[in-house]
Amino acid sequence: MTATVPRSPNLSLADFEALFESVKNWDRWGADDVRGTLNYITPEHVRRAVSLVRSGRSVSMAIPINTVAGPDNPSPAIHHMTQLHDWDIRSGKVRFATDFLGINFHGDCHTHIDALCHLAYADQLYGGRPASSVTSHGAETMAIDDYADGITGRGVLLDIPRLRGVPYLEPGEAVTRDEIEEAERVQGVRLEEGDIFVFRTGHHRRRLECGAWDNGYGGEGKAGLHVDTIPWMHERKVAMFMPDGDGETVPSTVDEILYPIHPLQIVAMGMAVSDSLNLEEIAAACEEERRWEFMVVAAPLRLPRGTGSPFNPIAIL
Amino acid sequence: MTATVPRSPNLSLADFEALFESVKNWDRWGADDVRGTLNYITPEHVRRAVSLVRSGRSVSMAIPINTVAGPDNPSPAIHHMTQLHDWDIRSGKVRFATDFLGINFHGDCHTHIDALCHLAYADQLYGGRPASSVTSHGAETMAIDDYADGITGRGVLLDIPRLRGVPYLEPGEAVTRDEIEEAERVQGVRLEEGDIFVFRTGHHRRRLECGAWDNGYGGEGKAGLHVDTIPWMHERKVAMFMPDGDGETVPSTVDEILYPIHPLQIVAMGMAVSDSLNLEEIAAACEEERRWEFMVVAAPLRLPRGTGSPFNPIAIL
Amino acid sequence: MTATVPRSPNLSLADFEALFESVKNWDRWGADDVRGTLNYITPEHVRRAVSLVRSGRSVSMAIPINTVAGPDNPSPAIHHMTQLHDWDIRSGKVRFATDFLGINFHGDCHTHIDALCHLAYADQLYGGRPASSVTSHGAETMAIDDYADGITGRGVLLDIPRLRGVPYLEPGEAVTRDEIEEAERVQGVRLEEGDIFVFRTGHHRRRLECGAWDNGYGGEGKAGLHVDTIPWMHERKVAMFMPDGDGETVPSTVDEILYPIHPLQIVAMGMAVSDSLNLEEIAAACEEERRWEFMVVAAPLRLPRGTGSPFNPIAIL
Amino acid sequence: MTATVPRSPNLSLADFEALFESVKNWDRWGADDVRGTLNYITPEHVRRAVSLVRSGRSVSMAIPINTVAGPDNPSPAIHHMTQLHDWDIRSGKVRFATDFLGINFHGDCHTHIDALCHLAYADQLYGGRPASSVTSHGAETMAIDDYADGITGRGVLLDIPRLRGVPYLEPGEAVTRDEIEEAERVQGVRLEEGDIFVFRTGHHRRRLECGAWDNGYGGEGKAGLHVDTIPWMHERKVAMFMPDGDGETVPSTVDEILYPIHPLQIVAMGMAVSDSLNLEEIAAACEEERRWEFMVVAAPLRLPRGTGSPFNPIAIL
Repeated sequence: MTATVPRSPNLSLADFEALFESVKNWDRWGADDVRGTLNYITPEHVRRAVSLVRSGRSVSMAIPINTVAGPDNPSPAIHHMTQLHDWDIRSGKVRFATDFLGINFHGDCHTHIDALCHLAYADQLYGGRPASSVTSHGAETMAIDDYADGITGRGVLLDIPRLRGVPYLEPGEAVTRDEIEEAERVQGVRLEEGDIFVFRTGHHRRRLECGAWDNGYGGEGKAGLHVDTIPWMHERKVAMFMPDGDGETVPSTVDEILYPIHPLQIVAMGMAVSDSLNLEEIAAACEEERRWEFMVVAAPLRLPRGTGSPFNPIAIL
Repeated sequence: MTATVPRSPNLSLADFEALFESVKNWDRWGADDVRGTLNYITPEHVRRAVSLVRSGRSVSMAIPINTVAGPDNPSPAIHHMTQLHDWDIRSGKVRFATDFLGINFHGDCHTHIDALCHLAYADQLYGGRPASSVTSHGAETMAIDDYADGITGRGVLLDIPRLRGVPYLEPGEAVTRDEIEEAERVQGVRLEEGDIFVFRTGHHRRRLECGAWDNGYGGEGKAGLHVDTIPWMHERKVAMFMPDGDGETVPSTVDEILYPIHPLQIVAMGMAVSDSLNLEEIAAACEEERRWEFMVVAAPLRLPRGTGSPFNPIAIL
Repeated sequence: MTATVPRSPNLSLADFEALFESVKNWDRWGADDVRGTLNYITPEHVRRAVSLVRSGRSVSMAIPINTVAGPDNPSPAIHHMTQLHDWDIRSGKVRFATDFLGINFHGDCHTHIDALCHLAYADQLYGGRPASSVTSHGAETMAIDDYADGITGRGVLLDIPRLRGVPYLEPGEAVTRDEIEEAERVQGVRLEEGDIFVFRTGHHRRRLECGAWDNGYGGEGKAGLHVDTIPWMHERKVAMFMPDGDGETVPSTVDEILYPIHPLQIVAMGMAVSDSLNLEEIAAACEEERRWEFMVVAAPLRLPRGTGSPFNPIAIL
Repeated sequence: MTATVPRSPNLSLADFEALFESVKNWDRWGADDVRGTLNYITPEHVRRAVSLVRSGRSVSMAIPINTVAGPDNPSPAIHHMTQLHDWDIRSGKVRFATDFLGINFHGDCHTHIDALCHLAYADQLYGGRPASSVTSHGAETMAIDDYADGITGRGVLLDIPRLRGVPYLEPGEAVTRDEIEEAERVQGVRLEEGDIFVFRTGHHRRRLECGAWDNGYGGEGKAGLHVDTIPWMHERKVAMFMPDGDGETVPSTVDEILYPIHPLQIVAMGMAVSDSLNLEEIAAACEEERRWEFMVVAAPLRLPRGTGSPFNPIAIL
């Protein structure tokens, strides 16, 4: 396999909708279910994840919070010092420095997790709940605090640039099911039921080396999954998805749907999805330890009515 | 031991400063050290922490983010919906709801972790670094991203209301070293080198049951540690401190120093400290499982130059 | 007239809706009109306003921006220093201190002006435009920048506490048309077509003297207009309304409608309305100069898609 | 005079400091003065300003608030809808749409006024007050609320592109005293004691026509004043300065001082200064009315401890 993978033809909208129906988990865990594919993670899976820890090394999978506007950061985070050690009216020798963080966290540059309410397809959320249940006062259902206790499980890193022998994928490149399975074979690891799929395209490395670029629709695009990986994730019963980039290939691999991966994952499957991870440090650690599976602990902030949260998912090897 | 513990006499400022000197770790890990007591956590400690996982159950130790102003929440978090499913200029059937979170996270109501730069005593930070190294552009040293890879270790919950047979401690009550050691004996657990000290006074339960109160200086106060617990934490080589409340007893147990615990922990010892945890759920889980030790994974947001971070520390039992 | 005005019986909802119809200006200035009662202000009115200036004295009618949470300030303004004179990477001896202001400006404590899009009644805005034209991306029509050039006119202060011989009205007191006309007579001034009605209840003085109180629905309430003043404002062709408080009497003087004045003014009449002015300084100035008419210049920030703006309206005497 | 004005040689730092001393107003109005050149505006000046109103037309001199990041807008304003007409728990048919504005208002793209505390030169503010009087809790002296009652006066627009016969000046072009006096002659108007100097370079027009550019130090620069205009402003006793751009020529016309105009105006003279006005609409109005003098009313928000404020200054012709 080389760095120039010919791109498969796009799916039609009808194909997309058929695919949507075929991977729909709306009845799998009952009408009241709000946890979706996290239901695949059982206590047994957690114990298995824990058993993977050997070196005791922890690695962040988050990008440092970015306060600098740029082509992929139109809403830079706001970080203000609210008090310095210059000041405290009552505390004498003891002084406190404090700060304020403001973040429109679903931006392309901010490592974050999506709640199931974050996405609607044809006015429906996961489980068929109405899109209108998210109002100007937040989400009435499937807010991010449904994941309040965090997500603990076995992470498997599939490293596509490593497979291809390149530092990073280029915008527009779509990773197919065949290539993902090839990565499993080459790395000697297999994604199983209840696992966390850590998917590396090298997006963040490309940003570090080449500078930021406009990776959204109408911009230069980004590398991501081909839609044919969706049935594979469905069969494998993946619990959570953790990509650098956001998993989407831009331009899209589906006609008329600019962002097909998100609705299939979030709305159809009810999958816990995160965006914009920094997988450079974990990829290097895996390379050193020659193993691509590890314990993951990912804890969103406990934000009632929120559509997601900035977070710092930790891999423990 | 009863619910009415007579309060020990206050320390003088001179006593405080002698204590400060006696627990100072500024030379323990070299002049460049920025990790302080986290140096106590070795890979062996992480493996030990991991080995504690049995039920595979995860429990959040965070308070839900609080956007409602109140006597203990003068800077309520800001949570704005920035886009609803009413709107997307280009995406057709796929719609995204997004939100903005703004948080002055060192507030009493917000579960957060402190960076070592957060606190100065007599114009010095941990290691003798100058307080002026925190400027209006943030911390030049010992910012929260020094903890970017998260903190993983063995947590030990010492549950003082349980020991006293009360639902929660009352404002102003100071927990002494003797009482903490008594809690260890009663619970059959012992804090050891590299451990995370999870300290429950029932602060959050009191808030849930009685409503919020002004617990700061000049207000009704709060229950916390007596200063005599500091040498004990120093001897035990505690790596991290996780209290409900913030560990401080208000009114203070030291003359002229309104907040004595923080400078002793952060400035003198270089201890990783967090504030305002919600220990109600973990206390109930421990009670059910009849064990008070568990794996902890605590990951601050990766905020460059920050004095701390909101976070959601997870206990895994 | 005494300080204890017996309260008139409430209007029914049907009466309210009939009143709404009777003062509706939706056809007065054409189907495309977005300026509403500001159409009453002609160049001649501006020249008349200008001719009132004698002493050349300017007076702010705004409350200082309030960053302290309280019963009437659940969303305190955020004011952060973003740079101090401690810091500039390139400017040598020249240093800049800068700050950030964040404000949820429609709060009861923040002097602000409402755009016509701010209010809907029965899913309609002024002119019959749909409430749904305000989306999560802001107002598509009648945003505050329709007032970008500011409002300049003749202000007439009617000072009800002065009339009653009290320092301020008490919560729940409703000022009727009769009383307003009595104030005109006593003060020797008359509101005419195109004028700005500056309406003082002493709300801010009460706050300064007694402390903040919860003046919203379900709270202690506030003094304001009786609904019978609406036809009077309609007949008089008032261009703009500038009250301390927000003009509403709480509890309401209409059954089933908690805030009747706003929909009648904004939705039915298309009136430029502002809230939460500080009329203490202008009242004192008028008293000194023994005249209750003056030039007003009120300039909202030029905020596209906004539902209003914080502002600092200026009286020039 | 042509569009290509040869640039005068730069001043040395020593020249700059001598100039600073020569225009220093620190003793002019007493040691406690905090109003600086606004002292030049007397009631007589206000009456004169008022007497200029003829057409009764009002014109905004503000740029619409800009929420889009760009080369001159690294801190875009934040504008969030906080409530739509979708929601009100208690109000039935009456619905309120509200929004939040957050603004780091000293940015190049935001029309704003500076407080005298905004700028330090060699650790001193106007009047010799220490730069350290601005702390992380804001300005202890000379905050923007010293201008709370607004600034009312006679504005004189000097339109340099009009003089040169160009649509706008190019970055780096410095306007000298000679050219300003030439503009006065050509326009038939004269800046006098207590006047507001409205200075047009066409900055905003260039932005509208060519797109935003990085106009700060190290960027492409901007057109502004030559330093030799400072003694002229001092002699003329200008009360306030209102430029498009910010009055600075970048690159600077002084060695070692990147921003020389601001310290001379604010720190030495105590001049009320504003930045980043939109003078396109007033320039067109003046052209139509063939007169370049008008009444100005400029009202900062009443922000305690603030270093300035966003505002919308209004010209009344």
